[in-house]
Amino acid sequence: MSEPINRCPIQLTENGQLRHFLTTEGLPKELLTEILDTADSFVDMSAQQVKKVPLLRGKTVVNLFFEASTRTLSTFELAAKRLSADVLNLNISTSSTKKGETLKDTLMTMRAMHSDMFVVRHSDSGAAHFIAEQVTPDVAVINAGDGRHAHPTQAMLDMLTIRRHKGQFEGLKVAIVGDILHSRVARSQIHALRILGAEEIRVIAPQTLLPRHIESLGARVYTDMNSGLRDVDVVMMLRLQKERMDSALLPSESEFYKLYGLTRDKLAFAKPDAIVMHPGPINRGVEIESAVADGERSVILDQVTNGIAVRMAVMSMAMSGQLAEKNRAQPDIDNLNL
Amino acid sequence: MSEPINRCPIQLTENGQLRHFLTTEGLPKELLTEILDTADSFVDMSAQQVKKVPLLRGKTVVNLFFEASTRTLSTFELAAKRLSADVLNLNISTSSTKKGETLKDTLMTMRAMHSDMFVVRHSDSGAAHFIAEQVTPDVAVINAGDGRHAHPTQAMLDMLTIRRHKGQFEGLKVAIVGDILHSRVARSQIHALRILGAEEIRVIAPQTLLPRHIESLGARVYTDMNSGLRDVDVVMMLRLQKERMDSALLPSESEFYKLYGLTRDKLAFAKPDAIVMHPGPINRGVEIESAVADGERSVILDQVTNGIAVRMAVMSMAMSGQLAEKNRAQPDIDNLNL
Amino acid sequence: MSEPINRCPIQLTENGQLRHFLTTEGLPKELLTEILDTADSFVDMSAQQVKKVPLLRGKTVVNLFFEASTRTLSTFELAAKRLSADVLNLNISTSSTKKGETLKDTLMTMRAMHSDMFVVRHSDSGAAHFIAEQVTPDVAVINAGDGRHAHPTQAMLDMLTIRRHKGQFEGLKVAIVGDILHSRVARSQIHALRILGAEEIRVIAPQTLLPRHIESLGARVYTDMNSGLRDVDVVMMLRLQKERMDSALLPSESEFYKLYGLTRDKLAFAKPDAIVMHPGPINRGVEIESAVADGERSVILDQVTNGIAVRMAVMSMAMSGQLAEKNRAQPDIDNLNL
Repeated sequence: MSEPINRCPIQLTENGQLRHFLTTEGLPKELLTEILDTADSFVDMSAQQVKKVPLLRGKTVVNLFFEASTRTLSTFELAAKRLSADVLNLNISTSSTKKGETLKDTLMTMRAMHSDMFVVRHSDSGAAHFIAEQVTPDVAVINAGDGRHAHPTQAMLDMLTIRRHKGQFEGLKVAIVGDILHSRVARSQIHALRILGAEEIRVIAPQTLLPRHIESLGARVYTDMNSGLRDVDVVMMLRLQKERMDSALLPSESEFYKLYGLTRDKLAFAKPDAIVMHPGPINRGVEIESAVADGERSVILDQVTNGIAVRMAVMSMAMSGQLAEKNRAQPDIDNLNL
Repeated sequence: MSEPINRCPIQLTENGQLRHFLTTEGLPKELLTEILDTADSFVDMSAQQVKKVPLLRGKTVVNLFFEASTRTLSTFELAAKRLSADVLNLNISTSSTKKGETLKDTLMTMRAMHSDMFVVRHSDSGAAHFIAEQVTPDVAVINAGDGRHAHPTQAMLDMLTIRRHKGQFEGLKVAIVGDILHSRVARSQIHALRILGAEEIRVIAPQTLLPRHIESLGARVYTDMNSGLRDVDVVMMLRLQKERMDSALLPSESEFYKLYGLTRDKLAFAKPDAIVMHPGPINRGVEIESAVADGERSVILDQVTNGIAVRMAVMSMAMSGQLAEKNRAQPDIDNLNL
Repeated sequence: MSEPINRCPIQLTENGQLRHFLTTEGLPKELLTEILDTADSFVDMSAQQVKKVPLLRGKTVVNLFFEASTRTLSTFELAAKRLSADVLNLNISTSSTKKGETLKDTLMTMRAMHSDMFVVRHSDSGAAHFIAEQVTPDVAVINAGDGRHAHPTQAMLDMLTIRRHKGQFEGLKVAIVGDILHSRVARSQIHALRILGAEEIRVIAPQTLLPRHIESLGARVYTDMNSGLRDVDVVMMLRLQKERMDSALLPSESEFYKLYGLTRDKLAFAKPDAIVMHPGPINRGVEIESAVADGERSVILDQVTNGIAVRMAVMSMAMSGQLAEKNRAQPDIDNLNL
């Protein structure tokens, strides 16, 4: 499990172009770098007066959210609109899909409406992958978070933020702190950091919030915060998923904050120029001290800005890949038309 | 009641152009054929890279849904966006309109915002017609389903699907199966099929789910499924409206499925090349066997694709008619400006 | 408090351009007149076939509604779309912002997404002003109603309606009738009328629905409806905010209607050509008699039409001001680029 091979071949075309974006796991370094380079150009554009490009003009992007997430939905909606796509938001509670229509029927229906891209959020691990298998070859699928499995656009916006602040990944020590066990973000971050060449990836959490075999992903485990933060270049805090945590796993928020909350005292163990990241929304006084969240080492708002750019990059690249594949799949038909 | 005369003159201009689309009943064959021809061109377009035309650019389409229907709303929203309209979705529960504001006030307010088109969904039969009377001449009204009365765009997408598969209506035997009593779709289908010249229209349902005098619409009644399906070219299944059915009318879902569910065995009575239709969402194992729904005679997903095209056709035609009428209504004013 | 000085300097640029629109209080007469002139041109445009201008193309407008208001949201959404902006609607219940994220974090996040404009609706007085302070200089803020404080776009659409019917404000007697105490609209109307030069502003309400010191705003107080309406040119009815009223303040709706409902009998005291206004939605038989609301002196639907135009005017002017200020703030950066 330690070799970065393509563990999700469905997300690439035969030529290695992005086709779906389901997980960072196993993607080639060149592809992740291409995402970051493309996103960089969109960051620059979003400071322009007209923040719009016609890359997805006439395309239909459907946000299929089986799990509510206003913030993630907003970033994808904005990204799609800035690419000039037509956007349809569908909040599909799991209960309503059970009532009469199967998930597959819903997907086939949306596909039959000539949708070009599904942005999928689902509480089940593997849902985005399942959907990509169902809808190929007409639709490109972007994973906006599936269960505990992956949240690849969040991971890539984090990578973009690191690269814009640190220049490169080589030589970096990065600590991921918090509820690793329930975090789809942490998994995606670890894969991306390894592929991009970070020197050392550490996870810091209480024993009860660590998944088994986490070391096999290539991360060093710390249960003591101060030791884990020593000399790191980047501190990536996770959001405490209160609603997902069993009370038996954690005594109290104040206890968690005391041991794993990022305070100025604990941050002093990191390098003097270490940056502090958090995916938001922030639970102030639970995961992080306000003075740190709002301090000069915080790059939390950069993450938000970069989030739009990364989503625009992934959407435009996946659309290109999907079109390239579709054209390859129908050469005879095209020739007949000549 | 057997003569196909225009029973809803409000929906045509003096010159016979479509102006509102409220019911298929009594419309001229030429007009229904024009809708199908226009929709055909949009089906072709939706396979293009850029699925957008500027026919409704700068126009405001308001989806006035007094009854929730995510699927129907989505198709109209997409159709309007692909015509380049600005779209406003208003989910107006009946209760909220009762709270302080009358329906008429709501309509006059939306009209005063210079809306150009209302897409109306309402649980009361006749609601779309009432609204069209109120808002004329500024606004075109499209009926997206009103009570048990009509669902004309659904009927026309069904007609488009039949024509694309069978080439013409002449000589066709068509069976409509299920809860005829509560179905606005069945009424609109029967009217459209008669006008377009289908040879024989059959309705198949238990006695308790048949409206009185259904024969007067021009349909032959069968209570036995196998007899009704014998030699038909088209099988149109209806959706079982569970929430609308009184328990006394029907013993159980399994009983219904046994007698009227479309299985491979029953389908064998139809012609070998008969097509199978369903408006969706499908209740598998209640109205239809999965092997039939997903089988080679099923054209259910074609119906979805055709649904966008038919809505684009009806919206663009009604907008043309409304503009033509408005120009005719103000010739003196225009002349004064010369 | 009787001098019309700029009580909210944040809403103007150094050069006196509109930059945010938070309150009508203290704005220069020239600026209010510019809003009306600009809105006038948009009223004319909205009768055109293509009701769209590219003034906000590539800009992102976020409707931040902390308090639900379908009608106000719709007018701002339509106005933004007709200016060609990309629009994001966020319904943020107060409870959800309490759950984990502070208001400031929400704002900073939306700002980091490179939003250009926030349209803010909030139940707390002063919320829009607070938000404008937080997000300057990247974002322009439009107040869509904050607590009992202000609802300036409603006031300005009322001013536009008066000017289009009466030609000017000089010499006009205007009566504002109803629940003055809880009305943000009344405050904004009184300020705007004074600034624009109305001759006499009257408020008519029961003693229990009058704020203390209302005279200091420049209004004459009447508790008797007939006396208050005598010889007025304009009658502005307020909406009865049932949910905000303490039962002790008012015995019953029928009692209120008897004393302060606008009937034909009471309207007879006003000038023969007096116009009747109401912000909607109307409570027929509570605030106003149907024969008056639908009568020839009613300009209620004109208010709706003018509401879109005023919002387009304010949005485009604030965007110009915000861009001018941003350019002034970065001259050195721009020069470095030469």
